[in-house]
Amino acid sequence: MTYRPRTNDHSFILNEVVGFSQVSATETFGEATPDLMDAIFGEAGKLCEEVLAPLDGNGDAHPAKLENGVVRTSPGFEGGFRAIAEGGWIGVTAGTDHGGMGLPIAIGTSVNEMMSGACLSLQLCPLLTQGQIEALEAHASDTLKDLYLPKLISGEWSGTMNLTEPHAGSDVGALSSKAEDNGDGTYAVSGQKIFITWGDADFMDNICHLVLARLPGAPAGTRGISLFLVPKFLPKEDGTPGERNSLRVVSLEHKLGIHGSPTAVMEYDNAKGWLVGKEGGGMAAMFTMMNNARLGVGAQGIGVAEAAFQKALAYAMDRKQGKVGGTGTIVEHADVRRMLTAMKADIFAARSIALACAVALDMAHATGEAEWSAQAALLTPLAKAFGTDVGCEVAHEAVQIHGGMGFIEETGIAQHLRDARILPIYEGTNGIQSMDLVARKMMDGGEALFRILDEVEATAEAARETLPELAEPVWSAAETLRETTEWLVGQEMNDRFAGAVPYLRATARVLGGHYHLKAALAAPGTPRVGLAQFYIKRLLPEYTSLLTQVREGGEGLYALSTDDLAA
Amino acid sequence: MTYRPRTNDHSFILNEVVGFSQVSATETFGEATPDLMDAIFGEAGKLCEEVLAPLDGNGDAHPAKLENGVVRTSPGFEGGFRAIAEGGWIGVTAGTDHGGMGLPIAIGTSVNEMMSGACLSLQLCPLLTQGQIEALEAHASDTLKDLYLPKLISGEWSGTMNLTEPHAGSDVGALSSKAEDNGDGTYAVSGQKIFITWGDADFMDNICHLVLARLPGAPAGTRGISLFLVPKFLPKEDGTPGERNSLRVVSLEHKLGIHGSPTAVMEYDNAKGWLVGKEGGGMAAMFTMMNNARLGVGAQGIGVAEAAFQKALAYAMDRKQGKVGGTGTIVEHADVRRMLTAMKADIFAARSIALACAVALDMAHATGEAEWSAQAALLTPLAKAFGTDVGCEVAHEAVQIHGGMGFIEETGIAQHLRDARILPIYEGTNGIQSMDLVARKMMDGGEALFRILDEVEATAEAARETLPELAEPVWSAAETLRETTEWLVGQEMNDRFAGAVPYLRATARVLGGHYHLKAALAAPGTPRVGLAQFYIKRLLPEYTSLLTQVREGGEGLYALSTDDLAA
Repeated sequence: MTYRPRTNDHSFILNEVVGFSQVSATETFGEATPDLMDAIFGEAGKLCEEVLAPLDGNGDAHPAKLENGVVRTSPGFEGGFRAIAEGGWIGVTAGTDHGGMGLPIAIGTSVNEMMSGACLSLQLCPLLTQGQIEALEAHASDTLKDLYLPKLISGEWSGTMNLTEPHAGSDVGALSSKAEDNGDGTYAVSGQKIFITWGDADFMDNICHLVLARLPGAPAGTRGISLFLVPKFLPKEDGTPGERNSLRVVSLEHKLGIHGSPTAVMEYDNAKGWLVGKEGGGMAAMFTMMNNARLGVGAQGIGVAEAAFQKALAYAMDRKQGKVGGTGTIVEHADVRRMLTAMKADIFAARSIALACAVALDMAHATGEAEWSAQAALLTPLAKAFGTDVGCEVAHEAVQIHGGMGFIEETGIAQHLRDARILPIYEGTNGIQSMDLVARKMMDGGEALFRILDEVEATAEAARETLPELAEPVWSAAETLRETTEWLVGQEMNDRFAGAVPYLRATARVLGGHYHLKAALAAPGTPRVGLAQFYIKRLLPEYTSLLTQVREGGEGLYALSTDDLAA
Repeated sequence: MTYRPRTNDHSFILNEVVGFSQVSATETFGEATPDLMDAIFGEAGKLCEEVLAPLDGNGDAHPAKLENGVVRTSPGFEGGFRAIAEGGWIGVTAGTDHGGMGLPIAIGTSVNEMMSGACLSLQLCPLLTQGQIEALEAHASDTLKDLYLPKLISGEWSGTMNLTEPHAGSDVGALSSKAEDNGDGTYAVSGQKIFITWGDADFMDNICHLVLARLPGAPAGTRGISLFLVPKFLPKEDGTPGERNSLRVVSLEHKLGIHGSPTAVMEYDNAKGWLVGKEGGGMAAMFTMMNNARLGVGAQGIGVAEAAFQKALAYAMDRKQGKVGGTGTIVEHADVRRMLTAMKADIFAARSIALACAVALDMAHATGEAEWSAQAALLTPLAKAFGTDVGCEVAHEAVQIHGGMGFIEETGIAQHLRDARILPIYEGTNGIQSMDLVARKMMDGGEALFRILDEVEATAEAARETLPELAEPVWSAAETLRETTEWLVGQEMNDRFAGAVPYLRATARVLGGHYHLKAALAAPGTPRVGLAQFYIKRLLPEYTSLLTQVREGGEGLYALSTDDLAA
């Protein structure tokens, strides 16, 4: 069966649930009308279905390989990448100055989700390039912008992010790569970087690495880090790729999943680079890139979940087993139906959170209002962690629905489970996201969240008349979350961290309830009401036990010493 | 780091938590004293640590292969199997008449868990053989017993189970393999079977297949199924393997995990077989084997969880990242500590449930009392489903603790995630286990469960004085579960099925709370109190939201049609 992106669900969520009309109403994004959105989604959907989805299995069965220092990509990936580039999809949200479409991030997030459901390992290449485009747009000099942006947006060149070193993963500040001023406006960058996604490929004219490194005498920690653009081939005067730079792929990782995405160990040996942003401003520049990448990774989780759900549904509607009425297939079994409906309800919740985050980013960009920025900042870790957890959970359940066939690689469903497993880890583990939520994103004393909870309660009040059975639990959930948050912001940091993961999930559960309720209100008499009912009555209540955990704080967490744990 | 079975935890649970002393007090198992138990666990632990655990990666990296019709097993597996056989471990619970140790299933279950943590794919071979031994002991003629049991128990021969056919998985009754009476006391068995674990190997003198098939004129469904013993080589007069039987391995599956365990498609073409049990009694005989196999699979889940937990703990205690006190390693981070302590608490809960089930089986065997049988029957689906879910969840979290390294296959932790994924599927999916719990195991109106809940509440009452903060939540949980169960047994079957999976998990959560509380009472002033506290305050509360789901019944489950799901 073929993966087909749920373009209708994206349009519905954007138009009816997360308030995309506000984005269209701004001057910046005035051209992003519902009609344009539909046209864009139609094209993206076609590309996913016809070109990208058929490549997904190739990447898994024929991983990218390093041969004589050159990365050989999986069969068909070159064609897939060209199709993405030629459709203009790499620059979907990039500024029009350098050839981008200039569309809202909300539309870009939907398109990215669709493509990652089709072929996650290939989609990573444009996703990383988009991150680089954003970083350059925000921090690079005009010279660098004029040279690099058109090539990156057109897909002639691609981009990578180089943060991690063997002893500097989540703790980026511990990195030790070095850069020295060459005195001619360029720098000599040296060091080893690991886990570099699409660190090399055989179908790009040039590959541009954004590398974090330290200048001589820079302070320790994150304040001493600067960002450098280090291309594989040094551009000639006319902008075409010239001399080979002094960098190489040392090896590719042998991974659990996303085999089609080459994950490289990179070595820079006095490679020539250009400073992006200020000296010591590397982390700030990297965060521009990383925040949007986090939303992008959340969308990847949802995309994989959608693909896995579709396969599980198709299997369940085809497989005859046991004595049931109707079609005689296992989809009639109560437990199978429960799993499938739960998957669909969770996908909707995660997708709505991601798109609400995207809308807030667009509104912040278009209006410059601090409240929108704060909302986007708050929703980013939620979109990343919940989206990727849903990716893993739905893939796990989709395997279960396949029974014994799910464990056979040729069936194809296990690949989603393996592919999805990186998502809660990269771009900041979900533990880091949760800590970000309860610490940095609560520096306002919870204000940004309370504003959202005000909205949730207003929706619930509005629904009391027509959907009282759904309105009440959503209202209570919002109120309980508000109380717990008021408590949380008064705690010591380690007490917050102790319950950060359950707190994030509880918050996502409540927001999911809100979006489901809005959907039910917007589409009375449709299956969206039944789906909202399923979510609000069966899945939402998880928040109570999660918040119970949160309230425990750090007390008791260290009751067992490491010796006790090992005993 | 080396996997080391937690022999101390097994002894503690058996002696202090699940009442193994009752088993030792029976005439049948009078020799199974605590001292003997310790000696057994010591030997088993040594074998796991020194011989089996080092083979686990071999099986993964060098899967079993079919070459010219012969299965070539993974490097070192022959030696590992010989060590298991020579230690007498295949016959640990088999009757002494034919060379078994005659030990209680409780001890056998612990040993099986230890070995599955060491090398799951190899341990499947003795596990399946044990199942065959049980089925033959209970149902075969004395002639078959005398011929086959000594060879199976010594490990000269091995055994397999052949149930599944392409269109008969969970619905065994749909199978179509045939057997015809040869008129000489043997039968001609024909058909194709899939998913045959250890269907062939290159280090056994003979492989004995138990095959479900239909005799001519047999009724449709499960009542028409008979069981046949079909050896690879037909035994000669003197019992040694003679002529090749007419059966073959068609192919081996390419699987997500347990690569070292050959999973065969088997073809029987008028192969010579012997009837085991009565004509039409195949399902009864198979259930003897399957029930114990279900407990065994639950133990596999716990074994994999233990191995994954140990690796995650070792990694967390070694990996320096971020600014924390103490050792400076990530084990000091609140969220990492939370994950590790949760893993350990869940492993304890699942292990206790499995061993309580094993004790009930031993007591049923030794006393013949119906109440013990009912208790064993009730606990079997709980042990299987919860043990294997914990296996998957702990493996997932263990990967998370490894961060990016967890996604690299060479690290070894991802193998546990892949291996564990089959456990909630085979030997009856966890959905089937849950349906078994709410239907067949509730035919007594919940009586067997209520007896257990009486015990839980008695323990809670006893703990009120010394551990009031733990006693109260356990008592309330038991009471809520009792009320929900009283409601459940009054519902139509499909309403029960709709909430079967959350009901099973809630029940496991409550039983886990009980065993943790018993442990805390039995070992005051030790870390077991802190672990109980962690479980009861943070993990137990999940039962509330699970039971909320159960109470929803089937209403609303079919609110979305299959078209709606696909929309």
